[in-house]
Amino acid sequence: MNRRRRIYEGKAKILYEGPEPGTLIQHFKDDATAFNNQKHDKIEGKGVLNNRISEYLFQRLGEIGVPTHFIKRMNMREQLVREVEIIPVEVVVRNVAAGSIAKRLGMEEGTPLPRSIVEFYYKSDELGDPMVTEEHITAFNWAVPQEIDDMMSVALRANDFLCGLFLGIGIKLVDFKCEFGRLWENDTMRIVLADEISPDCCRLWDIESQEKLDKDRFRRDLGGLVEAYQEVARRLGLHVENNP
Amino acid sequence: MNRRRRIYEGKAKILYEGPEPGTLIQHFKDDATAFNNQKHDKIEGKGVLNNRISEYLFQRLGEIGVPTHFIKRMNMREQLVREVEIIPVEVVVRNVAAGSIAKRLGMEEGTPLPRSIVEFYYKSDELGDPMVTEEHITAFNWAVPQEIDDMMSVALRANDFLCGLFLGIGIKLVDFKCEFGRLWENDTMRIVLADEISPDCCRLWDIESQEKLDKDRFRRDLGGLVEAYQEVARRLGLHVENNP
Ligand SMILES: Nc1ncnc2c1ncn2[C@@H]1O[C@H](COP(=O)(O)OP(=O)(O)O)[C@@H](O)[C@H]1O
Ligand SMILES: Nc1ncnc2c1ncn2[C@@H]1O[C@H](COP(=O)(O)OP(=O)(O)O)[C@@H](O)[C@H]1O
Ligand SMILES: [Mg+2]
Ligand SMILES: [Mg+2]
Repeated sequence: MNRRRRIYEGKAKILYEGPEPGTLIQHFKDDATAFNNQKHDKIEGKGVLNNRISEYLFQRLGEIGVPTHFIKRMNMREQLVREVEIIPVEVVVRNVAAGSIAKRLGMEEGTPLPRSIVEFYYKSDELGDPMVTEEHITAFNWAVPQEIDDMMSVALRANDFLCGLFLGIGIKLVDFKCEFGRLWENDTMRIVLADEISPDCCRLWDIESQEKLDKDRFRRDLGGLVEAYQEVARRLGLHVENNP
Repeated sequence: MNRRRRIYEGKAKILYEGPEPGTLIQHFKDDATAFNNQKHDKIEGKGVLNNRISEYLFQRLGEIGVPTHFIKRMNMREQLVREVEIIPVEVVVRNVAAGSIAKRLGMEEGTPLPRSIVEFYYKSDELGDPMVTEEHITAFNWAVPQEIDDMMSVALRANDFLCGLFLGIGIKLVDFKCEFGRLWENDTMRIVLADEISPDCCRLWDIESQEKLDKDRFRRDLGGLVEAYQEVARRLGLHVENNP
């Protein structure tokens, strides 16, 4: 396990070469970053929780027919995934105004949107992940129109499903970010959901108390991040042991 | 002329009630503003030049079948237009990276874009005209999809024509901003090009010297704005007398 090749180290995860060609191991770190890395901390237990929650959500999404990179969880911090060619565009689906859209459009946080809105952000730490449109994505060939359509419809299906799932456990899915990649099988290519879906990349508000159960606890110095992620895991019926 | 009703005073123009119902008089002021009004100045002669240049460009665009609000020029500073319901979205067409796109996407100013790119900005001084996408425009009902398509295709036709026109007089059309409005005629509604097209809302670079012949002379404190606008008018074959 120690001599496996490290492919990439990101802000929250490390990718290692997987046991079979075309596979990778996604290792969830405890690092938390925000505002394009200006804020950085280590939060013990976060990686384990995200690994477990993301596993659960990718499995359930797979069951309703959403294609994903997920193969199986290996251990507390690691999961085996299919290696894909990541499309350098973060897809954000929003149901309620919060964060950047509230600021950009002058809306109070918590205002329900007239309908779910999909946004695209160019994945670039140097540029601070700027919002972009289909025009930029196609002009610079980050993705072709068919891929954008696929990402959009998969993101909206995932949103419908996750809204329902979280509603069932007393949580409002305010928004979430996802990433997609190109997966080649023989001669055909498919767009699959990749990366992770966890409280690190969702806004999750308790429906009763409006309490934030997501990474805004870190961004806004609210404390109790691990307890919040544990609460999400607990409501999802997940048993996460606490030894890292 | 003095007792006509003032409908609206904006940053660069005043709208008065026109002589017939459904018409307005667009009065071009000498005011220049930038960075959402933080920078403000009066530049004698600018209004007269923009009135004349915008008249010329709207007439030529009308001749190739682009529907516009323009009826006729009244005097040095004023033109008669059809009153429309302005769609609160500024449409920007870009051919070369400059200004905000260069910053947003980390490109050097002057880099040709792989193809013309259309962007939308929500017209709101308070919010600083934020970039938005079709998702926001339709979700908040600022325009319906068909209207977006119409604006986009008219903007691209205008871009093709204006690129050619300016190329013919040794000027590169780097980008321009335009506005559209809804015009009702009996029971039918059409989207028409409104507001103005002038060096105030274009980036125009001399092809030989790369000299800027547009409002960036004001934004970037380069001086010589009126001389630059005069040069554009001169190359377009327009005779603009200089008494305001
Ligand atoms: N199945 C996959 N194949 C290849 N790369 C992936 C896959 N899933 C996620 N990635 C990429 O791996 C990285 C995960 O690490 P992370 O810490 O999130 O990085 P970053 O700081 O770039 O967001 C991301 O860059 C993500 O795009
Ligand atoms: N044909 C028209 N009918 C109604 N409003 C128009 C028409 N053409 C332009 N406008 C609006 O008139 C105003 C022109 O004044 P301007 O100084 O450019 O204002 P602003 O500061 O709002 O940009 C703009 O708000 C523009 O949207
Ligand atoms: Mg990431
Ligand atoms: Mg204006």
